[in-house]
Amino acid sequence: MIKVSVLYPYTPGARFNHDYYRDKHMPLVKARMGDSCLYYTVDKGLAGGTPDSPPAYIGMCHLFCESVEAFQRGFGPHAAEILGDIPNYTDLSPTLQISEVVVEKQA
Amino acid sequence: MIKVSVLYPYTPGARFNHDYYRDKHMPLVKARMGDSCLYYTVDKGLAGGTPDSPPAYIGMCHLFCESVEAFQRGFGPHAAEILGDIPNYTDLSPTLQISEVVVEKQA
Repeated sequence: MIKVSVLYPYTPGARFNHDYYRDKHMPLVKARMGDSCLYYTVDKGLAGGTPDSPPAYIGMCHLFCESVEAFQRGFGPHAAEILGDIPNYTDLSPTLQISEVVVEKQA
Repeated sequence: MIKVSVLYPYTPGARFNHDYYRDKHMPLVKARMGDSCLYYTVDKGLAGGTPDSPPAYIGMCHLFCESVEAFQRGFGPHAAEILGDIPNYTDLSPTLQISEVVVEKQA
């Protein structure tokens, strides 16, 4: 399994609507990707390594897929619509990363 | 719930032993933190936004805790031992981020 991480770098003064991201954008992504996105997670950045330092990223999501090919197959046909929704919640440009899920969940 | 993300920036030529990280370091962290770490996840960076670009981070872990206080309570007393294990798998210095878990898992 792989995860596609979408990371929005914290930038003073930048706009990021966490409610829209959680309630509108991410459900849109999942609806369009269907089963090619197994599930997703959403984070809101609170702080860096010390409590009074800003986070590296103000918002993040992680899309879990069986493979890079599954992600591309699900996301590709809807890329224009999904990317076109970004200005509705932020003026930031995200960093993308693809990772292998080494440990999915260890309690 | 919060997550503490430990992010190791990809750096050409740097050392990172993914097996040690998965099999030794992360179990050590969980053993020392006990129930103050609800669970953790581990990722291995594969690529950036395009298949031939390097990932932003070569390795990541995310520690899920009830609160920042729970994390500090569980990690603090063992910080020296845990941080002292880092040279056993990498010569990189990680970036830390604390996030609010907005969506834990949405299928």
